[in-house]
Amino acid sequence: MEKHVAVVGSGNMGSCISKICALNARSSTEFCNEVRIWVHEELIGEEKLSDIINTRHENVKYLAGTRLPENAIAVTDLAELGSWADILIFVLPQQFLPRVLAGLKGHTRPGACAVSLIKGVFAGQEEEPMPRGLSLLTDLIRSNLGMECAVLMGANLAPEIAKEVYCEATLGCRDPIRAAELKRLFQTPYFRISIIENEFSVEICGALKSIVATGAGFCDALGFGDNTKAAVIRLGFMEILRYVQRFYGSAGVTKRTLMQSCGMGDIISSCYNTKDVKWAATHDGSGPLGMHDLVTTCYGGRNRKLGEAMVLTGKPLRQLEKEMLDGQRLQGPLIAAEVHRALQEEGQLQRFPLMVAVHLICSGQMKPQDFIEQLREHPEHM
Amino acid sequence: MEKHVAVVGSGNMGSCISKICALNARSSTEFCNEVRIWVHEELIGEEKLSDIINTRHENVKYLAGTRLPENAIAVTDLAELGSWADILIFVLPQQFLPRVLAGLKGHTRPGACAVSLIKGVFAGQEEEPMPRGLSLLTDLIRSNLGMECAVLMGANLAPEIAKEVYCEATLGCRDPIRAAELKRLFQTPYFRISIIENEFSVEICGALKSIVATGAGFCDALGFGDNTKAAVIRLGFMEILRYVQRFYGSAGVTKRTLMQSCGMGDIISSCYNTKDVKWAATHDGSGPLGMHDLVTTCYGGRNRKLGEAMVLTGKPLRQLEKEMLDGQRLQGPLIAAEVHRALQEEGQLQRFPLMVAVHLICSGQMKPQDFIEQLREHPEHM
Repeated sequence: MEKHVAVVGSGNMGSCISKICALNARSSTEFCNEVRIWVHEELIGEEKLSDIINTRHENVKYLAGTRLPENAIAVTDLAELGSWADILIFVLPQQFLPRVLAGLKGHTRPGACAVSLIKGVFAGQEEEPMPRGLSLLTDLIRSNLGMECAVLMGANLAPEIAKEVYCEATLGCRDPIRAAELKRLFQTPYFRISIIENEFSVEICGALKSIVATGAGFCDALGFGDNTKAAVIRLGFMEILRYVQRFYGSAGVTKRTLMQSCGMGDIISSCYNTKDVKWAATHDGSGPLGMHDLVTTCYGGRNRKLGEAMVLTGKPLRQLEKEMLDGQRLQGPLIAAEVHRALQEEGQLQRFPLMVAVHLICSGQMKPQDFIEQLREHPEHM
Repeated sequence: MEKHVAVVGSGNMGSCISKICALNARSSTEFCNEVRIWVHEELIGEEKLSDIINTRHENVKYLAGTRLPENAIAVTDLAELGSWADILIFVLPQQFLPRVLAGLKGHTRPGACAVSLIKGVFAGQEEEPMPRGLSLLTDLIRSNLGMECAVLMGANLAPEIAKEVYCEATLGCRDPIRAAELKRLFQTPYFRISIIENEFSVEICGALKSIVATGAGFCDALGFGDNTKAAVIRLGFMEILRYVQRFYGSAGVTKRTLMQSCGMGDIISSCYNTKDVKWAATHDGSGPLGMHDLVTTCYGGRNRKLGEAMVLTGKPLRQLEKEMLDGQRLQGPLIAAEVHRALQEEGQLQRFPLMVAVHLICSGQMKPQDFIEQLREHPEHM
């Protein structure tokens, strides 16, 4: 039986993954030739985005310039898609996930599975905080749809994948047979996949790295050199390792995961963005920041840039989010707040000085200039 | 008994470490107040460098602008220094090491120990290749002086340490009591030390990272994005892990070491050098390269830059070394050649495609443009 593959989401990464899956499905007998993409319908001028994708084979709004295979078909009915798909690939901004899951609920096939490419965590509401640790987005998928959910994370910026530039990703999947199947669906000569069994650790890496990237942004704006930034990245890495070990898994598994693209690769990539160095170097802290530039850049770069902008402008986080992200909330600070809460409950704050400092700075309780001061007595150096 | 501390070498890093040790010795009862620096005597104008250091308390040639403590005393007699010192800290270009060791041999104190800050390996001569794996510089120290030798490595660029900018380093030392003593000698609020027992793994990290940095330079020059570079760094990291495990130690120790500043920190730092991005971006491949810039830059950045220059200019390595380094040999390609030989002898080439490709490109046997091609079937993705 050929498996039906559906990509839920049609942003830049959704479009990239649709292209990859559709090409792989076309040359395979195990996947149905037709790969469906769920599009949140919108009008581009007079035309529907789904019609544009199906006639011009290009997502002109989110991935202009990249040709999509003709067997990648845009659809808009979630319930119909759920009833058709054997593999549901979630790749959309996390704030849309609950609504999409509501649309799919009760309309799924027996034996279907999910894969999440969404980097983030479900931040608890103030009135209803999460019980312990961070709440995983995949758990939301699992509980709503009653199916297994793998994760695919890594140092993956959509514009580069679209150009077929070499990169790698980590597939977290507890079932080895399914993992091999998904790898055949996702891997291409330029998109290389490693498999890790522990799904949680892969997903948590993808979330926590945004805290470290925010800290790296502080570093850049404060004018520290390569030594300091390397230390911040490494200490952030060690805190993620420590956090995942404490809340989600064994030491061995965690180390192995952290050394994958979803860990080390993604942390490095999101803490640098060498292409943006000019942006930082030329911005003098006055006047409006490069809003357009920031909004259109990949997710990974945003945390670093916003951390940098906080220091350069002295503006509070919420104001910068309004100015630079059209009010959209940035992941790094949200996750830092959630991590801080979890650590406080467990009496563990002093073991995670970097992540704690990022939270305190983002929430206005500490000056960015004191960031490095917090790392001088880091437990890693005891 | 107060321990006598001697720093063998007075380049930029030697001067930084002398400053740190002298300040720590001054406020401690366990180290003799006077810290001696061995200077390879040279004339600066009419004056001797050692006299300048002892009267003006500044190494005007190698670390201008940084005041050295008055208890850091320049000396020029190696035998006398050896007979005086309880702790000999080696921090000088590796090509001078054999000569210096010859000067110290037979003139050391009982119970004295050494610490090496030299990043490199002893590359075997063509007529007398090393028996197996890389030959460690510390083994040269150990066998010549008959004393234990610890290592201190990390993401440590001297100009940044001189400015007292926060960074960290890894001390590899098998004796925990000595390790604690050395940590008290080296650690400051801006220079943070972690301890690892396995000295070999720390030293090898410091050497092998230069191969990865050379590869990162290819990447930059070829115009790849953040994804690819993150992948190259991670794959390089995994190959170093694999190499050290095979030749020098157990899996657990190796992973722990690779996660320290001497591993991950130094790899990241030497693969980026964000400060130099402009250099790469503005160089069009014609005309002479920024020789002065390259010669005066820290060691770590050189491998990345030369890798970049090879691609940008199309010139062979030896020619670039002549043009950019006054003929001095670069560590990355030398170590890559040594690693290639060791891997070939063990029939392991196919398990280390990144390090092998760096060697083949540096030795003119492969085009830099084929670098990424070699990573598509990397064992990490199997």
